[in-house]
Amino acid sequence: MRPNSLAVLGLGAIGGSLAWRATLAGVPSVVGYAPDRPDTVHALKAQAVHDIADTPARAVRNAELVVLAAPPRAILDLLPLIAPHLAPGAIVTDVASIKLPILAAARAAGLAARFAGGHPFAGTHVQGWKGAGAELLAGALVYVCSTGPEGDAAAREVMDFWAAVIGAHPVLIEAATHDLRLAWSSHLPQAVASALAAAVAREPSLRGAAFGSGMRDTTRLAASPVEMWVEVLLQNREPVQAALAGMEASLADLRRLLDRGDREGLTTYLSEAASFRRGLER
Amino acid sequence: MRPNSLAVLGLGAIGGSLAWRATLAGVPSVVGYAPDRPDTVHALKAQAVHDIADTPARAVRNAELVVLAAPPRAILDLLPLIAPHLAPGAIVTDVASIKLPILAAARAAGLAARFAGGHPFAGTHVQGWKGAGAELLAGALVYVCSTGPEGDAAAREVMDFWAAVIGAHPVLIEAATHDLRLAWSSHLPQAVASALAAAVAREPSLRGAAFGSGMRDTTRLAASPVEMWVEVLLQNREPVQAALAGMEASLADLRRLLDRGDREGLTTYLSEAASFRRGLER
Repeated sequence: MRPNSLAVLGLGAIGGSLAWRATLAGVPSVVGYAPDRPDTVHALKAQAVHDIADTPARAVRNAELVVLAAPPRAILDLLPLIAPHLAPGAIVTDVASIKLPILAAARAAGLAARFAGGHPFAGTHVQGWKGAGAELLAGALVYVCSTGPEGDAAAREVMDFWAAVIGAHPVLIEAATHDLRLAWSSHLPQAVASALAAAVAREPSLRGAAFGSGMRDTTRLAASPVEMWVEVLLQNREPVQAALAGMEASLADLRRLLDRGDREGLTTYLSEAASFRRGLER
Repeated sequence: MRPNSLAVLGLGAIGGSLAWRATLAGVPSVVGYAPDRPDTVHALKAQAVHDIADTPARAVRNAELVVLAAPPRAILDLLPLIAPHLAPGAIVTDVASIKLPILAAARAAGLAARFAGGHPFAGTHVQGWKGAGAELLAGALVYVCSTGPEGDAAAREVMDFWAAVIGAHPVLIEAATHDLRLAWSSHLPQAVASALAAAVAREPSLRGAAFGSGMRDTTRLAASPVEMWVEVLLQNREPVQAALAGMEASLADLRRLLDRGDREGLTTYLSEAASFRRGLER
């Protein structure tokens, strides 16, 4: 769909970038809402939005498409809040990195036929509007999840919006598959970085020790916003537990090879890891 | 000491940089040796060394100071090999990231009074001569380890060389303390990066999954040279086992918090990790 009117709730890195790109792509009315007043001022000054609404309800009431670009917890709260205020035929989507709980909340809010989940992959580490950019989402991979058979039409509209208006690459995926993949590919590295930082922080023998770039890189994610990650880990709990168990097993394998002094086994283990990592650069 | 003659065995990133800097600092004779012929050609062309020797024995025979800048395994082999060929009064040091096994080998080679261990912290990820630079070691932290009371004079000479000739910052440290700290600060991040890469590589649900910058950063070290790391892990086995156990306990703590759905506990845990990580940027 190419909406005539778009509401974007949340004007941080993702919401700000999406509004900005839609405005530049010629969507006639782009209305933003953000709880942080500075983000709204920046978005207006950059002409990323045409107007700012002072409540979520006012933001959505004339929109053909509503994008919820808030943290996962806030999206869960926004869904029932905006549902009664949507225009007839309006479609709603989101950008959260977990999908099953969001789809469940959309169904509970009576939006099964009007909601599709979305998750754009945009590599930004900068939070809030200052992480936004008109080009951030261009060419990005965007996972789109249907609420089920009755939501398939909405999912197609949302995919079309991402491709035709934003210039991104939407890919349809089952929400459970999405959440499992994300548990391994995104939430596990976050958990591992935090667990390493926590382990090192607690070790008394390290007072005054020097740390190099290896420690800095491996723990970089540990500096991510705590509040958001508590939500993500809790809301994607089961797949994350499975991924954590996989990591613990992998560490235990390594320790056993070391216990045995198994040079050949260690070489195979580290070679497999190196081969996987080198493949990520391609 | 400001040696009149220096031998550098190994002309990779560290050895090449050290020879180069010593030559620029005015050491009258800097002789290099490297098993890789291209490294010797590059070092000569860059005028990082005055001459190249074709065997370790020939490299060391006139040197007042000998620096072993090879991987740990090769240093262990070189110590008994060069010992009979050293000039009277020559001092020997090394650059390996583990110190107890190297000091033991130096003592076994009859060099207790003439050897001091060294470990410069230079953040290079590029192996071999192409990682070398005349400025790489300037201002670097260098841990120096004495073989014991009879080696203290040699350790002072080696510290003085690093400070006066190379312009680095030598710090005297007990070898056991060094190895324990390195197990946590360097070998553990390496092991964790490899264990994460191995865990993800083995997970069947991830075929075709997309990975972002978080996974790339957290696993970056997994692409490090396998052969060298097999040696480091095996030679620093006990401290590394302790560090791995600490990491497993930290991951298990995180998983338990998740099992209980303990929002407050997760917030505390992730906050401690974030606080440690943010401290690394200072």
